[in-house]
Amino acid sequence: MTTSEALTAHVRRMIPILAAMELEILEAGRTTVVARIPAGPNGNHFGTTYAGCLFSVAEVLGGVYASTSLVLEGAVPLVKQVTIDFLRPATTAVLARTTLDEDTIARVLAETGEHGKSDFVLEAEVSDEAGTVVARTTGHYQLRRMA
Amino acid sequence: MTTSEALTAHVRRMIPILAAMELEILEAGRTTVVARIPAGPNGNHFGTTYAGCLFSVAEVLGGVYASTSLVLEGAVPLVKQVTIDFLRPATTAVLARTTLDEDTIARVLAETGEHGKSDFVLEAEVSDEAGTVVARTTGHYQLRRMA
Repeated sequence: MTTSEALTAHVRRMIPILAAMELEILEAGRTTVVARIPAGPNGNHFGTTYAGCLFSVAEVLGGVYASTSLVLEGAVPLVKQVTIDFLRPATTAVLARTTLDEDTIARVLAETGEHGKSDFVLEAEVSDEAGTVVARTTGHYQLRRMA
Repeated sequence: MTTSEALTAHVRRMIPILAAMELEILEAGRTTVVARIPAGPNGNHFGTTYAGCLFSVAEVLGGVYASTSLVLEGAVPLVKQVTIDFLRPATTAVLARTTLDEDTIARVLAETGEHGKSDFVLEAEVSDEAGTVVARTTGHYQLRRMA
């Protein structure tokens, strides 16, 4: 079991711009993954969080499963398409949360084991410190065994 | 006429994380807007550009029109929804380019003048130094006169 502190360090080392965003992995379970960015480095001069930072805190969740439940030798999750809806301006730190069910985990591992790849969809919600949903994403990912 | 150098400085001041990405505005015309990010600060440890950086270089284009053709006292372009398709890994600097036609510019200015807001769509292409398209975005924006 990798701790969320170790995963935060890992993600920031792998993707340095996420260190500049001060991104943290708060929860890294088999099914639920949560990440956070503070307002400070991610704001614009209107006092709200920049769209690209809201995108990133949600998008990065897909990769975390490679350390929790989508663990297969030589396989990595790749992002294929993301749609993000911006619902409200965010003025505080935000949390992005997503869930993958056990049936999907089993399917993706089995298909990747057999065919070398498998698609899955993650719906994530980004909310501010008051619990208001500020953005929603639908991400299409593929677990793929690299050559 | 604002120069692309002045706009680069303006955008980096307004959105500090875009300074961390070393984003540049290369072209800021009435109809065509082009931005660039280098590989260096935007990569991951697989040697490709991070998804959130490809998103940002395309998303930011919509805001540039506020300095070129969608110029209306007190009005700002807000992003409502973006879909991004990741087509290929990017391993070099990338350019994002989009175009808004004169009819749309006239419509958006007229509607915002009359009703305080108007929606428009931007299709952007993100390509690497070899000219390969690595991502495509469809962004839904709204020019809105702020209270």
